[in-house]
Amino acid sequence: MEQKIGVYGLGAMGFGIAQSLLKNGYKVFGYDVNVKQVERLCAEGGKAAANVLELNAVCIVVLNAQQTEQVLFGQNGVVPTMASGAVVVSCATVDPSFAKKMEKKCAEYNVLYLDAPISGGAVKAARGALSVIASGTDDAFIAAAPVLDAIATTVFKLGDTAGAGSAMKAVNQLLAGVHLAAMAEALTFGMTQGISPEKFVDVITQCAGTSWMLEDRAPHIVLGDYTPHSSVDIWPKDLGIVLEIAKSVNFSAPLTTVALQQFFKASSAGLGREDDAAIAKIYALDAGITLPGVS
Amino acid sequence: MEQKIGVYGLGAMGFGIAQSLLKNGYKVFGYDVNVKQVERLCAEGGKAAANVLELNAVCIVVLNAQQTEQVLFGQNGVVPTMASGAVVVSCATVDPSFAKKMEKKCAEYNVLYLDAPISGGAVKAARGALSVIASGTDDAFIAAAPVLDAIATTVFKLGDTAGAGSAMKAVNQLLAGVHLAAMAEALTFGMTQGISPEKFVDVITQCAGTSWMLEDRAPHIVLGDYTPHSSVDIWPKDLGIVLEIAKSVNFSAPLTTVALQQFFKASSAGLGREDDAAIAKIYALDAGITLPGVS
Repeated sequence: MEQKIGVYGLGAMGFGIAQSLLKNGYKVFGYDVNVKQVERLCAEGGKAAANVLELNAVCIVVLNAQQTEQVLFGQNGVVPTMASGAVVVSCATVDPSFAKKMEKKCAEYNVLYLDAPISGGAVKAARGALSVIASGTDDAFIAAAPVLDAIATTVFKLGDTAGAGSAMKAVNQLLAGVHLAAMAEALTFGMTQGISPEKFVDVITQCAGTSWMLEDRAPHIVLGDYTPHSSVDIWPKDLGIVLEIAKSVNFSAPLTTVALQQFFKASSAGLGREDDAAIAKIYALDAGITLPGVS
Repeated sequence: MEQKIGVYGLGAMGFGIAQSLLKNGYKVFGYDVNVKQVERLCAEGGKAAANVLELNAVCIVVLNAQQTEQVLFGQNGVVPTMASGAVVVSCATVDPSFAKKMEKKCAEYNVLYLDAPISGGAVKAARGALSVIASGTDDAFIAAAPVLDAIATTVFKLGDTAGAGSAMKAVNQLLAGVHLAAMAEALTFGMTQGISPEKFVDVITQCAGTSWMLEDRAPHIVLGDYTPHSSVDIWPKDLGIVLEIAKSVNFSAPLTTVALQQFFKASSAGLGREDDAAIAKIYALDAGITLPGVS
C-alpha cells in the first residue's frame, strides 16, 4: 500500500525532511503558513496538504508546542482526518509534559504519536542524515519506521511513552546552549590576552576545553561569517523550555540561567536572526574588543 | 654533555614527569616538601635535588604561583644555583603577568624561562604523553627541548615571550571548568526527568551537547567512582586565576563566575579531595536526587 506522508512546517528543517521523503519515493504532502514554500515543494514533486485525507504519517516540523497543537488539533487540524493507525512524528523541541498530552489526545482518534525531536541542522535534514531522539509505543515506532528510515541515520529509542524523547532533547539543548556561550566567553577572554580567534581554535580543539559546539561554531567567528545555519533566536526558546521544565521540578540550573541571559542580550541587540555564533558579539561589546570581520 | 634535570614538586604530575625523564636516560634530581616522594624517586633511580649545583633544566610542577616563586627564588631557591644558559620549565597554572615577571627575574641570573603549563593528567605524565602549552624565547625552547621531548607528545608554541602559554592555559581551564559543571547540571537535570546517567552518556556523547570533559568525567558518575584523577580543589584555584586575569582587564565572565560558585560549594561540602566529577553531588543535593553508588 502506498504511503502518503504529510510534512507540516516547511522551514529549513521541514523542507529538507520533505525532500528526503520524496527521494525515498513517498507521496509527500506539505503545509506551511508561507504559501511560497508549498509551491517550492510542488516544484520538486510534492503536493499541497490542504484537504488531503487519510495520511499514513505526518511529520510536524514547526517552531514550538503552540504551533504543534495548532497543526494537530486547531482549525483544520490534521489528526481527525488521518487514517486509523496512522502516526504523528512530532519534531519540535517541546516540554515532555506537552508531548505526553499530545500522545493522549492523538489516541482518542486512534492515531499514534512519536515524540521525536530532531538534531543535525538543515543540511543533514536534506540529506536524510538527521539524528532523532525518540520515544513512544512500539506501534508508534513501527508506524514511523518508513519516515525515520528516510530522514535519519541515527534514531535513539528513549522509552515506550512520549516525553522521554523531549526530555533528552532538553538535556542536549541545555548543554549545547551553555557550551556555545562558554565558547564565546573563552574566545573573547583569550582576545583580551592577545590570543587570536584562529590560534584559539587551533589549540583548544586539541585540548580538554573542547566541545562539539566549539568545534562547529568557533570557526564562524574566525571567518567573521554570521550566515544563520542555526540562529540566535533558537536559544531563548530552547533554553526557556529547559528552565520551564526545571521550574516544574524545583531544579536549580544556574549555568543555563546565565547562558539564557546572554542569548536574551544578543536577541535584544538585534542579533536574533544571525548565526548563533553571534553570541560572541555580546561579549566583544562588553569587553570593547573587535571580532574578525565585524566593524 | 650529560644533562642534569631537576623536578620540583613530586605530586601526581611531577612524579610522572620525573619518571619520564628517567626513562629517557637523564640524571634526575627531585624535590618535594614531602620527603617520602623524594625517597620514592630515589628508589626508581633518581636523586635528591638538595645541594645539587649546575642543573641544566628544572621542571617546576608545584600547585601555584606562590610555590613556584618560593622554589625559584625563595630560601634555597634553585635559580641562583643553575648553570648559565640553563632553563626553567614552569608547569603550574599561573597568571600570565606572573610568568612574565619570572622570565625577567630568571634573566638576571642568565637563566632562560619557558612558560609551560601542562595538560593531560597523571597517567599521561608518567607515559611522557602530556600536552604543553608553551611560550618563551627561541633559546628557551631550544634549551627545554630535551625535557619537552621526554614529557610531551604535543607542544603548542604560543609566542616568543612568557605569558602567552599561561593565557591559553587559562582559556582552556575556563572552558574545561564550565563544561564540567554544565555536564553535572545536565546529567542531574536529566535524572529529574527519568533519564539515567548511563542513558545520558550513551546518547549525549553522540549529540551536539557533547564535550571532552563530559566524555571523560560523566562515566565516573555512572560508575559512582570518585577516585581523584583530578580533584575538585583544582577548580577554585584555576577558575580563580581566570577571574583574576579577567578582573585585571575588566572582562565580564558570567559563566565562569557561576561555575566557580558551584566548585566553592563542592569544596565547602567536603568534596575537595574527591574526583572533580563530584561537582554533580552538589546538584544532586540541591535537587534531592541520588547518584549511582552514592548513599
